[in-house]
Amino acid sequence: MPGQKTDSFPVVRIENPAAPGPFLIVCEHASNTFPAEFGDLGLTEEERKAHIAWDPGALGLARGIATRLEAPLVAAEVSRLVYDINRAPNAPGAMTVRSETYDIPGNQGLRPQDRLRRTTSIYQPFHAALHGEIARRLAVGESPILVTVHSFTPVYFGKKRDVEFGVIHDADPTLAKAVEKAALAQTTLKTRLNAPYSAADDVTHTLRLQATPYGLANVMLEIRNDLLSDAAAEEAMADKIAPALKAAIASIESFPSKMAAV
Amino acid sequence: MPGQKTDSFPVVRIENPAAPGPFLIVCEHASNTFPAEFGDLGLTEEERKAHIAWDPGALGLARGIATRLEAPLVAAEVSRLVYDINRAPNAPGAMTVRSETYDIPGNQGLRPQDRLRRTTSIYQPFHAALHGEIARRLAVGESPILVTVHSFTPVYFGKKRDVEFGVIHDADPTLAKAVEKAALAQTTLKTRLNAPYSAADDVTHTLRLQATPYGLANVMLEIRNDLLSDAAAEEAMADKIAPALKAAIASIESFPSKMAAV
Repeated sequence: MPGQKTDSFPVVRIENPAAPGPFLIVCEHASNTFPAEFGDLGLTEEERKAHIAWDPGALGLARGIATRLEAPLVAAEVSRLVYDINRAPNAPGAMTVRSETYDIPGNQGLRPQDRLRRTTSIYQPFHAALHGEIARRLAVGESPILVTVHSFTPVYFGKKRDVEFGVIHDADPTLAKAVEKAALAQTTLKTRLNAPYSAADDVTHTLRLQATPYGLANVMLEIRNDLLSDAAAEEAMADKIAPALKAAIASIESFPSKMAAV
Repeated sequence: MPGQKTDSFPVVRIENPAAPGPFLIVCEHASNTFPAEFGDLGLTEEERKAHIAWDPGALGLARGIATRLEAPLVAAEVSRLVYDINRAPNAPGAMTVRSETYDIPGNQGLRPQDRLRRTTSIYQPFHAALHGEIARRLAVGESPILVTVHSFTPVYFGKKRDVEFGVIHDADPTLAKAVEKAALAQTTLKTRLNAPYSAADDVTHTLRLQATPYGLANVMLEIRNDLLSDAAAEEAMADKIAPALKAAIASIESFPSKMAAV
């Protein structure tokens, strides 16, 4: 399916919408595209390629996982610095004025109408499209398993991060704990639950908005981006993560009843 | 704002979208309209006017409350028997085959594509419109208080119901308890928390989908429909309920911080 457009720029693309598997893969920080309407936010080209603008490697990994699990993929097509669609419209991080050590000049002093414009042109169509994919599956008796795929920077505020694979949950930890266990058993990745951050850091908005109301199994994955340095690395990582997701779901006893919709 | 159309029939209307008050009033069962596409579901005219098809009096009451609170009103324009937009697409009650003592012939043996069509043409546009109203307010720094307005039948399965005003909550009971307390103090209505049914009966989908993810104050109101028998009765009831809602919000200590978005 081609990227769905609102006004003049694409916001969300849905790949393999008819894929038959039970997973639904989401990549909120897939793109470092800055639509012309919003300019470059006063950032250099280097800054617009850095981890502050997107999750490097996450889209390739998400595609690799989606292919292996025969799952649809819903990916954003706008930089998180213009609007971070994994944040509510009233969250400071939705249109952040600062990310790690970087000031974001174009996000300073935004007027209400600026915040409104980005919300209605980016946040709403992305989540309406994702909600549509979920609702359509629920309507025909399927309960999609929502997996969001992210990457994180190996050095944050000058400090090295040891964890390689973070598995993050929101209200329901069932699937996250099962993924952690499967990854520890099947891979040599340094895997940790709720690392390098957790729901308390306001990073699980998509899970909360799209999965929790329907009682869907859900988890957020975070992979250290130095392990996703090129297409071959992304494929190799998908070869590790996809089987862990399969094993995790298989390990959840009485899965259908526990995950039944509300 | 005129009713928003999808395909050939209206699904949702938004009245007073620019109203300045902090409340957002929702009426999911406002209409007993059966769009031509779905026929009359095999029901008689009398059945299509009964409480199984809609919440009689709820729209008039919701309008009365919205006017008094200077609030926008989001109301459905399709009968709950075609699609009950206060139910998830995989809930049995979304396109119910039976309501109280009535069989719904046109909902027997629905095929997956029938369920899909009703979901995409009614459920999705209604909730996208409501989500839009919420997201736009969040974007400009407002945290709307979500109030859903319903009516219930005084006799159910042959048994008389004594309660007159039911105040129902989902995950967060704060506002519901405050409304119950205010109604008991300010009115003579027989008021009860979580009556004549509760979230355990799967009646709080709208609150769960639209308010909980944003940490918005929210409550579902149920008024016995014999107390809403004509326009004058609806206005008289709005004169009781609207002040109780105002008093309830005022009574919630440190409201802004407790209700701050996630």
